[in-house]
Amino acid sequence: MEIRTDLAIEAGEIFGKDNLPDGVKVQSQEGNNITITRIDVINEEGEKALNKKQGAYITIELKDVELNTLEIHNEVAEAIDKELEPFIAKTGGRPSVMVVGLGNRYITPDALGPKVVEKIVVTRHVQKLSGGSNDIDSRLGNLCAIAPGVMGVTGIETGEIILGLVEKVHPDIIIAVDALAARKTSRINRTVQISDTGIVPGSGIGNRRMELSEETLNIPVIAIGVPTVVDTLTLARDLIENATGDSLRENIEKDMLNSCGADNIVTPKNIDMAVARMANAISNGLNMAVHKGFDFNDISDYLL
Amino acid sequence: MEIRTDLAIEAGEIFGKDNLPDGVKVQSQEGNNITITRIDVINEEGEKALNKKQGAYITIELKDVELNTLEIHNEVAEAIDKELEPFIAKTGGRPSVMVVGLGNRYITPDALGPKVVEKIVVTRHVQKLSGGSNDIDSRLGNLCAIAPGVMGVTGIETGEIILGLVEKVHPDIIIAVDALAARKTSRINRTVQISDTGIVPGSGIGNRRMELSEETLNIPVIAIGVPTVVDTLTLARDLIENATGDSLRENIEKDMLNSCGADNIVTPKNIDMAVARMANAISNGLNMAVHKGFDFNDISDYLL
Amino acid sequence: MEIRTDLAIEAGEIFGKDNLPDGVKVQSQEGNNITITRIDVINEEGEKALNKKQGAYITIELKDVELNTLEIHNEVAEAIDKELEPFIAKTGGRPSVMVVGLGNRYITPDALGPKVVEKIVVTRHVQKLSGGSNDIDSRLGNLCAIAPGVMGVTGIETGEIILGLVEKVHPDIIIAVDALAARKTSRINRTVQISDTGIVPGSGIGNRRMELSEETLNIPVIAIGVPTVVDTLTLARDLIENATGDSLRENIEKDMLNSCGADNIVTPKNIDMAVARMANAISNGLNMAVHKGFDFNDISDYLL
Amino acid sequence: MEIRTDLAIEAGEIFGKDNLPDGVKVQSQEGNNITITRIDVINEEGEKALNKKQGAYITIELKDVELNTLEIHNEVAEAIDKELEPFIAKTGGRPSVMVVGLGNRYITPDALGPKVVEKIVVTRHVQKLSGGSNDIDSRLGNLCAIAPGVMGVTGIETGEIILGLVEKVHPDIIIAVDALAARKTSRINRTVQISDTGIVPGSGIGNRRMELSEETLNIPVIAIGVPTVVDTLTLARDLIENATGDSLRENIEKDMLNSCGADNIVTPKNIDMAVARMANAISNGLNMAVHKGFDFNDISDYLL
Repeated sequence: MEIRTDLAIEAGEIFGKDNLPDGVKVQSQEGNNITITRIDVINEEGEKALNKKQGAYITIELKDVELNTLEIHNEVAEAIDKELEPFIAKTGGRPSVMVVGLGNRYITPDALGPKVVEKIVVTRHVQKLSGGSNDIDSRLGNLCAIAPGVMGVTGIETGEIILGLVEKVHPDIIIAVDALAARKTSRINRTVQISDTGIVPGSGIGNRRMELSEETLNIPVIAIGVPTVVDTLTLARDLIENATGDSLRENIEKDMLNSCGADNIVTPKNIDMAVARMANAISNGLNMAVHKGFDFNDISDYLL
Repeated sequence: MEIRTDLAIEAGEIFGKDNLPDGVKVQSQEGNNITITRIDVINEEGEKALNKKQGAYITIELKDVELNTLEIHNEVAEAIDKELEPFIAKTGGRPSVMVVGLGNRYITPDALGPKVVEKIVVTRHVQKLSGGSNDIDSRLGNLCAIAPGVMGVTGIETGEIILGLVEKVHPDIIIAVDALAARKTSRINRTVQISDTGIVPGSGIGNRRMELSEETLNIPVIAIGVPTVVDTLTLARDLIENATGDSLRENIEKDMLNSCGADNIVTPKNIDMAVARMANAISNGLNMAVHKGFDFNDISDYLL
Repeated sequence: MEIRTDLAIEAGEIFGKDNLPDGVKVQSQEGNNITITRIDVINEEGEKALNKKQGAYITIELKDVELNTLEIHNEVAEAIDKELEPFIAKTGGRPSVMVVGLGNRYITPDALGPKVVEKIVVTRHVQKLSGGSNDIDSRLGNLCAIAPGVMGVTGIETGEIILGLVEKVHPDIIIAVDALAARKTSRINRTVQISDTGIVPGSGIGNRRMELSEETLNIPVIAIGVPTVVDTLTLARDLIENATGDSLRENIEKDMLNSCGADNIVTPKNIDMAVARMANAISNGLNMAVHKGFDFNDISDYLL
Repeated sequence: MEIRTDLAIEAGEIFGKDNLPDGVKVQSQEGNNITITRIDVINEEGEKALNKKQGAYITIELKDVELNTLEIHNEVAEAIDKELEPFIAKTGGRPSVMVVGLGNRYITPDALGPKVVEKIVVTRHVQKLSGGSNDIDSRLGNLCAIAPGVMGVTGIETGEIILGLVEKVHPDIIIAVDALAARKTSRINRTVQISDTGIVPGSGIGNRRMELSEETLNIPVIAIGVPTVVDTLTLARDLIENATGDSLRENIEKDMLNSCGADNIVTPKNIDMAVARMANAISNGLNMAVHKGFDFNDISDYLL
C-alpha cells in the first residue's frame, strides 16, 4: 500500500529505526519539551522508499500534549530559528526573504499560513524607502510576506501569483508555510516539518497544485508545515490496517468514500486556538531567523 | 449495542419502516427540497426502543447536497416556522418567547446557537418600554434571545444561568438551539431536528450537563438542533459494524480511544460557511414563527 | 483652500449646479432609493477645478439612511452592473476581469476590498482547466480576484504585486475596490463611486502609494470606492469653515493635529455591519456585470 | 457647561491640582510606564463638583503612546491586580468573584468586556464539582465570568440578566468591565479606570441603562473601564471651547448634530488591535487578583 502522508517522519516510521532503507538517514535530538528528527533522503532509492523527494526533512515534535505554555512556545520558536539557519546561510549572507502563507484563511484548519503572515515583522518596504540609510537597525533583515489565497477563491493558480511576485520583488529565498495532512491524529498540531524540497499548495485540505520549489521558482524554497487534519479515509484505513483482510479493507474504504465523500476531515475540537498558537510560534521563529540578534523580548507577546 | 445519537431519526431507522417498535409512530412528508419526518415517542416502550424521551421529534432533512440556494433556504425557514406553530399554539395565544443559543461561539462547529441569536429580531425591550402603546407593529411578537456561553468559559452551569433568567424575564416558552452530534457524516449540516423534549447543553461537542426542559424550567422548552459533527469513535464503530466480529470491534475501538482520545471530531471542510447558512435559515424561521405575519421579505437578506 | 476628498461629487458640490467650472459636466438620474450622478472631467481646467484626474466619475448615492433592505441592495447591485457596462464594452467583448480588493482586512473600515473579493464568483481557473470545453455555462465570464494586503503588512508596494500578477495572468481589465475617505460624515457607507481614472491604494485610511491605473498597468483600471471614514482633521476643518477667521482656523487645526495625531478616524458605530452589506452589494454587482445573464437569483443570498 | 465624561480624572482636571473642590482628594504615583491617580469623592460637594458618585476612582494611565510591549503589559496587569486588592480584601477573605463583560462583541470599540471574559481563567465549576476536595490548587480562587450581550441584541435589560444570575450563583463581588467614552482622544486605549461605584451598561457607545452597583445588586460592584472612543460632539465642543463665543458654539454644535447625528464616533485606526491588547492586560490582572499567588508566568502568553 502506498504511503500517503505529508510528513516524512510518518513515511519513515514504518521501517523502524534499525531497518532504514538505503538512501535515508535519520538523526534525533531531544529538547526539554520537543524532539527534533532530521531525515535526509539522499538518493533515488530513498526517494522511492519514502515516497518523498530528495532533500532534508526536519521534524520538530512536541512531547507534551499541546503548545500551551510560554516555555514550550519559546522552545519551538527557537528550534525553528536554529533549523532555518543552515538554509539561510546557503544563500550567502543576509538574504531578502519572502514568506508565503499558503491556505484559505476562512477555513480554520487551513488558515495556518495566512495567520503566520499576520505576525511577520515585514521590513522590505522600510529598507527600500530608506535607500540603505543608517537609520535602520542593522539587526533587521529584509523580510516581506504575502498570503495569496487559494485557487478556489482567487481563480488563479497560487504558483502563478508567486512567480509573478518573485519576478518583481526578487527575493533570495522563499519560506512557504502551509497546513498539512497527517496520517495519525496524535500528530495534529504537535508537529512542525521544515523541508528544503518545496511544497505543493493545498496539501492540507485542498487539491494538490503546481509545486513551489527551486525548480519552478529558481530560488530556494523552504517549506514549513504543520499537520492540522487527518482525512477520514486515511483514518479508517489505519484503523483497519492490521486487523482485517484485503477484501474487507476494500469494502470498508468504499463505504467510507460513499458515506463521507472526500469532504470530511478529522480535526481537534480546539483547532481554532491550536492553529493560532502554532502560527504564533512559527512567525516568532521566522522573525528571529531573519532579524538575527534583534531583541524581540520586549515585544514578544505582541509578535506571538 | 446502545444507540448513541442525538437524532431520533437515526435511532429509529435501525428498525426499518415496517418494523417499528411499539410506542413509536412515524409519518413523512415530501417538499421540493426537503423531507419532513415526524416521530412520536408515545410510551415507555418507545422510549426504551429509541433511547429517547417521550415526545415529538420532527426532522427536516435536505434532499440535496447542501443549503446553498435562496429557494432551499426559504423552504427550510418556512418549514421551521410551520412546525413550531403547534408548540406555540399550545401556550395559548401569543407567548413571550426566549431563544437560547447554546454552544461555544469560538469553536466553529459548536457556534450554531450563538449565531442564531445574532440574527434574532428581538422586541421584548421595545414592547416593555412602550408599555403596550399602539406604536408597535401588532404583528411583532415578544421575543428575546441570549447566548449564555458554555460552562468551560463561564464557570457556571448553563442551566443555572437560564433558570436565573427565566425567573426574572418570565417567558412563556423557551426555544433552545444547539449543535448536535450525528452518527452518519451524511447528515451533518443537512438535518434540523425540532423536539418538545428539551435539550442537554453540550450534546454536540461538549460534556452533557443539566437538562433544559419543562421539568427543570417549568415552561415548555422546544429544542432545535443541527448535527455539525460526528465523533470519531462513532464513525469507526459504524464502519466496522457489520464487517467484523465482536472481539475485533473491541480492539479497534480501544485503538481509536488511545490514538484519538475523545477530542477529535469529524466535520466538513466547509463547516464555517455551512454553520452560518444553517444559522440563517433557523433564525429566519424563528423570526417568522414569533413575528407572525410580519413581512420580512424586504429585509430578508439582512436577517439571514 | 485645497479640496481634499476622494469623492468627485464632494469636490464638485462646492461650485453649485449652476456654476460649474469649465471642463466639468454633471448629469443626474433618480432611482427609487438611489441617485446616480455622472461627473465627467474633460480637460485640464476641470482637472484643476476639482483636483481630480480627467475621466468619468459615477456616484451612486443612497437616498435613505442605510443599505438595509433587500430592495435597496438589489437596486445598488443593479446600478453597479449597469454603470460598469460601458467600461466593459470598451474592452471589445467579454474581457477577462481581475478584481483587486485593496485595503487591510484586519481594520474594519478598511476591509471593504478584501470583503468584496470573498464574495466574487471566480471562474478563471475553471475556464483554464476546461480548455474551452462546452461544459461551462456560456454565461459565465472569466473572472479572478485577489486581495493582496497592504504594504504595512506585506512589506511590498501593492502596485508591484499587481503588476507582477498582471504580467502572469494577463487580464483585459482590472476592477479595483477600496475604502475611501469622505469629507462629510453623511456620505459614509452611503455612496459608491465608480471611476475610470484608476486608484491609489491607501486612499481611505493609509498612506497614499503608487497608483493603479492604465498608465502604470497598461490595461484599463476601473475603481470602485465607498467612503467609510472621515478623518478628524477634515471634520474639524469643515465645522469651522464658515464660522471663524483664518488665524483661529490655523490654531484649531494645530490643536487637532497635536491632540489627535493623524491616527484617529470618524466612523459610524455600526461600521462592521455597514461594510459587510456594502461589500455584498458591490460583489453582487460585479458578479452580475461579468457573468452577464447568469441567473444569480437562486443563489443570491449566498452571494450577498 | 456640564462635564460629560466617564472618566473621573477628566472631570477633575478642569480644576487643576492646586484648586481641588472640597470633597475631592487626589493622589498620584509614578511607575516606569504608567501613572496611577487615585481620586476619592468623599461627600456631596465633591459629587456635585465632579458629577461623579461618591467613591474611589483609580486611573492607570500609559505614559507612552501605546500598550505595545510585554513590559508595559505586565506593569498594567500588575497595577490592576494591586489596585483590586483592597476591594477584594473588604469582602473578608477569598471571595467568589463574578466578572461581567459588558458591551457588544460585534462592534469593535465596544467589545472590550466580552474580550476580557474570553481570557478569564474560570474555576467556579471545578470548585463546585470537586466539592472542596484537595485536588484543586489552593491558590486558585473561585471565579466565574459572563458576557451577557447588550439590550439591543438580547431584548433584555442587562441589569435583569445579572440580577437573575446573582440570585442563582451568589457571588461575593462583581467586577464589571466595559468600554467607556473619553473627552480627549489622547486618552483612548491609554487609560484604565477602576471604581467601586458600579457602572451603567452602555456608557461607551450605547444608551445608558440600569446601573450595576451595590445598590441594585446587594453585593459590591467594582467597575473597570477603558475609553475606546470619543463621541464627535464632544470632540467638536472641546475643539472650540476656548476659541469661540457662546452663540458660535451653539451653532457649531447644532451643525454637528445635524450632520453627524449621534451615530458617529472618533476612534483610532488600530482599534481592533488596541482593544485586544487592553483586554489581555485586564484579564491578566483579574486572573492574578483572584488566583492569588498562582504562577501564570509559564502560561502568560496564552492568557494574554
